[in-house]
Amino acid sequence: MDYKELMEKRRAIRDYEDRDVPLDVVREIINDSIKAPNAGNRQIWSFIIVNSKARMKELSDLNKKTVLAGIEANPNSPMKVYEPMLRNDDYNVFYNAPCLVYIVGPAKAATLAPDCALLAAYFMLAATERGLGTCWVAQGGFIRDPEILKELGLPEGYQLVAPIILGYPKTIPPMPERNAPKILKVLS
Amino acid sequence: MDYKELMEKRRAIRDYEDRDVPLDVVREIINDSIKAPNAGNRQIWSFIIVNSKARMKELSDLNKKTVLAGIEANPNSPMKVYEPMLRNDDYNVFYNAPCLVYIVGPAKAATLAPDCALLAAYFMLAATERGLGTCWVAQGGFIRDPEILKELGLPEGYQLVAPIILGYPKTIPPMPERNAPKILKVLS
Repeated sequence: MDYKELMEKRRAIRDYEDRDVPLDVVREIINDSIKAPNAGNRQIWSFIIVNSKARMKELSDLNKKTVLAGIEANPNSPMKVYEPMLRNDDYNVFYNAPCLVYIVGPAKAATLAPDCALLAAYFMLAATERGLGTCWVAQGGFIRDPEILKELGLPEGYQLVAPIILGYPKTIPPMPERNAPKILKVLS
Repeated sequence: MDYKELMEKRRAIRDYEDRDVPLDVVREIINDSIKAPNAGNRQIWSFIIVNSKARMKELSDLNKKTVLAGIEANPNSPMKVYEPMLRNDDYNVFYNAPCLVYIVGPAKAATLAPDCALLAAYFMLAATERGLGTCWVAQGGFIRDPEILKELGLPEGYQLVAPIILGYPKTIPPMPERNAPKILKVLS
């Protein structure tokens, strides 16, 4: 697909068809995404694939519990705005998508956040090219229980950086308005 | 350009033709890059364009001084490996590229690093589509002098996140080998 078209079609999708994503397709998308630029080509990223709505529902419930506990401990939490949503039992942080990929890496790596985000951009474009929708769901990264993290295969000292849901979109919404870019200075 | 071709052609370029990048082209690339996904569509990014080799040489010298001072203060610095290069007067951290774009944002924003990196991925692809080469030069972000930061137009409380050089590549090197992606677990 042409890049311009791809950029327009890559939207945050929160409404998915009830249709599984074949594991091979997930692997293809990952294979494309590792072409992303990254610091010193060290490729510090790894992946966890959760390809089951039932598992994702369990993870969603755990995430909600952790975020709500954080809000209770700190009433000034920036997550406070999400409280009513999080208290709704029907709310699934993964929007009932059929698949979830965690981009993870060593917590101490200085370039962890940018490297995983560069990869995430490639991942979301590569998914769009295959007719899939994605959404980076920050609320899906709040798993703290060591047992669950072990079950997810997360190595000691690693961090869940980018939880990205994946599935066939019911519809592709139009691109929301962007602000004109703020160019603070041009030095010539 | 087709996305697959674009991903292959997007390489870290460190050798540029002696040819300016028209400011309009830089603006076009920025206009594409703001289509990147970002937390809550808050678009916390801003831009500084340095479209002058002479200015970039001054900035390179300042960066080298700061990084070297850091290495002297901390002999275990991860930048230590770059010391011989940094002590070479001919070494320009911006590889004599004709143009530099700083992606910047509010230092306190929780999603600053990922949002700017998502944008950077789009920026580098949009540049590639126009026949330009780029490289994210982390060493170009070590400006600490408040006077210089003011001259760059950086608002109080803002941070230089991604310094990306831009220019017409002399050659496009082949994609360096990628490791097979580490898929830690598949939960189905």
